[in-house]
Amino acid sequence: MHKSAAIGIFDSGLGGLTVLPFLKAELPHEQLIYFGDTARTPYGSKSAKTILKFSSEITDFLLRRGIKALIIACNTATAIALPELRKKHPELPIFGIIQPVIQRLSRSAAPGERLLILGTKTTINSGLYESGLKVLRPDLELGAVACPTWVPLLEEGVRDGAFLDAAIQYHLPLDLVKNYDSLLLGCTHYPLLKNSLQRLYPGLKLYDPSESLVPVVKEGLSELKLLAEQKEAEDIFYASDLSSNFLNMITELLPGTDADTRFRDLSIPPEF
Amino acid sequence: MHKSAAIGIFDSGLGGLTVLPFLKAELPHEQLIYFGDTARTPYGSKSAKTILKFSSEITDFLLRRGIKALIIACNTATAIALPELRKKHPELPIFGIIQPVIQRLSRSAAPGERLLILGTKTTINSGLYESGLKVLRPDLELGAVACPTWVPLLEEGVRDGAFLDAAIQYHLPLDLVKNYDSLLLGCTHYPLLKNSLQRLYPGLKLYDPSESLVPVVKEGLSELKLLAEQKEAEDIFYASDLSSNFLNMITELLPGTDADTRFRDLSIPPEF
Repeated sequence: MHKSAAIGIFDSGLGGLTVLPFLKAELPHEQLIYFGDTARTPYGSKSAKTILKFSSEITDFLLRRGIKALIIACNTATAIALPELRKKHPELPIFGIIQPVIQRLSRSAAPGERLLILGTKTTINSGLYESGLKVLRPDLELGAVACPTWVPLLEEGVRDGAFLDAAIQYHLPLDLVKNYDSLLLGCTHYPLLKNSLQRLYPGLKLYDPSESLVPVVKEGLSELKLLAEQKEAEDIFYASDLSSNFLNMITELLPGTDADTRFRDLSIPPEF
Repeated sequence: MHKSAAIGIFDSGLGGLTVLPFLKAELPHEQLIYFGDTARTPYGSKSAKTILKFSSEITDFLLRRGIKALIIACNTATAIALPELRKKHPELPIFGIIQPVIQRLSRSAAPGERLLILGTKTTINSGLYESGLKVLRPDLELGAVACPTWVPLLEEGVRDGAFLDAAIQYHLPLDLVKNYDSLLLGCTHYPLLKNSLQRLYPGLKLYDPSESLVPVVKEGLSELKLLAEQKEAEDIFYASDLSSNFLNMITELLPGTDADTRFRDLSIPPEF
């Protein structure tokens, strides 16, 4: 693998796009190859077997494109597939989104902070955030809630208003939230809810996983002497389904990106 | 094909299960083989190319199991895939869910009835309900609204309460609904919203597509002399992902069904 090769990054759909602005700001020389599995999104309530299969297929797809490193920009896929993918591809540096968040929180959380972890069903059932934090910061008071309706609403473009408030209050009633100081947005879609969460629960601190992930990627690539020295090729975005939802979200999250020319429609067949 | 063979029936996920009680009541001698594409659900906001590919794969899967007829218990897949599947399999009787609803409504709607058609983005964008009804009943006043957030909420088990009301009012505000006499539930998931819709909008008549589909299937099989004479084998339920959502919905919609023994977990690999 050469330092001029691209970094692969994937998500079940659109959520991983929230990581890109952080990545591009911190690592402006890197070429990124993004894959959104929009034909099979969402992953969050599907079984481990299925999530592992989909994640493996996407990793193989990105490896055939010569990536030097892989970012799993999806908490659900990180929770289920990271150990297996590392075992299968021991030479590929693979960055999941959960461990960096645990590391950062273990340093930055206040003594005795009461932290509520939010995620998809699969992420929450994995218990990875809780078990990791318990080891490093036994003083924290942890809770966890699955919020499985948020990803589909966000993928459908719901961004504010009474409906989104009802979705937030359905999974996070005030009676629950009042017992906590902070929320961990344990899904790359959830930063899209920041404004609504802050308006509904103004006292709460919000942790966005992208802020933790990107420094870890930078440090890891630097140690491996794999940081690119200059931008040699344009970023490429792949989607397994070029849905209107995906194209709308590209425009929203990456203004200036010309979706028509930068996206390649795979629709799955040739390679998976 | 022999009359003792099974009827295949598929949906993008769980919605098609709402058709089963009608089918089993009207055609108690038929063996049913159900396929729910729970690994790739939902279909409603995905592209035509992807929906066609998934529908073809499922039809091939069911044909290998020797079905004598196929029911597409999904409005989205009917809208996109029915003509292509009939062309590809000219000897297989294929029943879609849209045409029977149009036929029945053309007979039963009141003169000048103001009918609002509801469905997924793909179903509504196809314009099939409107174009079909306009030919047969030019006196009807038609409207159409896509309600893309309803399927994911229903798949996540949301069945009533303030959140579901907010979802209904998001797509169907009173200002819109007050101009109509009736709602066509143009998605096999939507009958699960009947109680909430009736409570919020008590004056409106609701049309459930299953009521139209089953008599057409019965008549079609009878004409082809393909009606089973006695139940010779148990129904079989396949799901491409055995998610907890799917198992919960089986228990809810088909009480008495033992999901553990009646379901076979394919998780896609061997055959598609």
